[in-house]
Amino acid sequence: MESSNLIEPLRGRTFEELEVGQIMHCHGTTVTEDAVIEFARRWDPQPFHIDREAAQDSIFGKLVASGLHTMMLSYWLYFDSGVVRGTAIAGLGIDDLRFLGPLVPGDTISIQIRVIDKQPSSQPNRGKVKLKIETLNQRNEMIFQMTLHALVAAGGTA
Amino acid sequence: MESSNLIEPLRGRTFEELEVGQIMHCHGTTVTEDAVIEFARRWDPQPFHIDREAAQDSIFGKLVASGLHTMMLSYWLYFDSGVVRGTAIAGLGIDDLRFLGPLVPGDTISIQIRVIDKQPSSQPNRGKVKLKIETLNQRNEMIFQMTLHALVAAGGTA
Repeated sequence: MESSNLIEPLRGRTFEELEVGQIMHCHGTTVTEDAVIEFARRWDPQPFHIDREAAQDSIFGKLVASGLHTMMLSYWLYFDSGVVRGTAIAGLGIDDLRFLGPLVPGDTISIQIRVIDKQPSSQPNRGKVKLKIETLNQRNEMIFQMTLHALVAAGGTA
Repeated sequence: MESSNLIEPLRGRTFEELEVGQIMHCHGTTVTEDAVIEFARRWDPQPFHIDREAAQDSIFGKLVASGLHTMMLSYWLYFDSGVVRGTAIAGLGIDDLRFLGPLVPGDTISIQIRVIDKQPSSQPNRGKVKLKIETLNQRNEMIFQMTLHALVAAGGTA
């Protein structure tokens, strides 16, 4: 087979291809009550995340997803966007993570990704970027945000 | 049955019972390769989290857990500690989350929880606390940290 027939794997953006100010809107996912309860039973089994009746007495007044479920779904939508697929080297940390509103079973959430900072690394084949993830529900209410710090490959090495 | 025979449910600390400087050491959990791969397949399917061979070419040189797996396990150990069981009202956010070292299959991790700040809320029956979670492996190397912001019930209402 000639190499010109090869379809290259989908590749995300390199450090050079990411620019501060870029924004990407990503598709959404709908969250079922079963998924909310299943996630919370494993990771965050508080009454207002796993028990519809007990949740009525909580600050939320109804069953709501664990904030960590909102976080993981938001991260997954970010991963699935492919923005740094194959170019991400490692995650360094997260700041400014805020639970701004509840995720309620039946909601459909989507995310937007903003490049808010980039800094060269001490090594030439990589750089650091800060990506702000904002999560919106179907009423366009922002229910979650976080800023990811990631190490991303530079062009020549991806 | 007389009420004096009732065993009260285990209850965590209220806002008043939490004091800046308090520290709690919590038991550990051992992480299998199957668990690492299963978590990453669902939430963070990057080659170095799900494919032992591909991981050899990564920055880590071997299969490592997703940092988000380390985070969720750390959160679960925090939850399981019971420090604010029944008194936690809501999570507000997370700051200063850092992936400091890899979590490798077979590792046993434990956490320590430090109360680093508390602030009264505008409402008298609750307050805000900041809890720093630090995650150590079996060699006592700190591999993860994050600071949780939580809304906790005040004594009279817990």
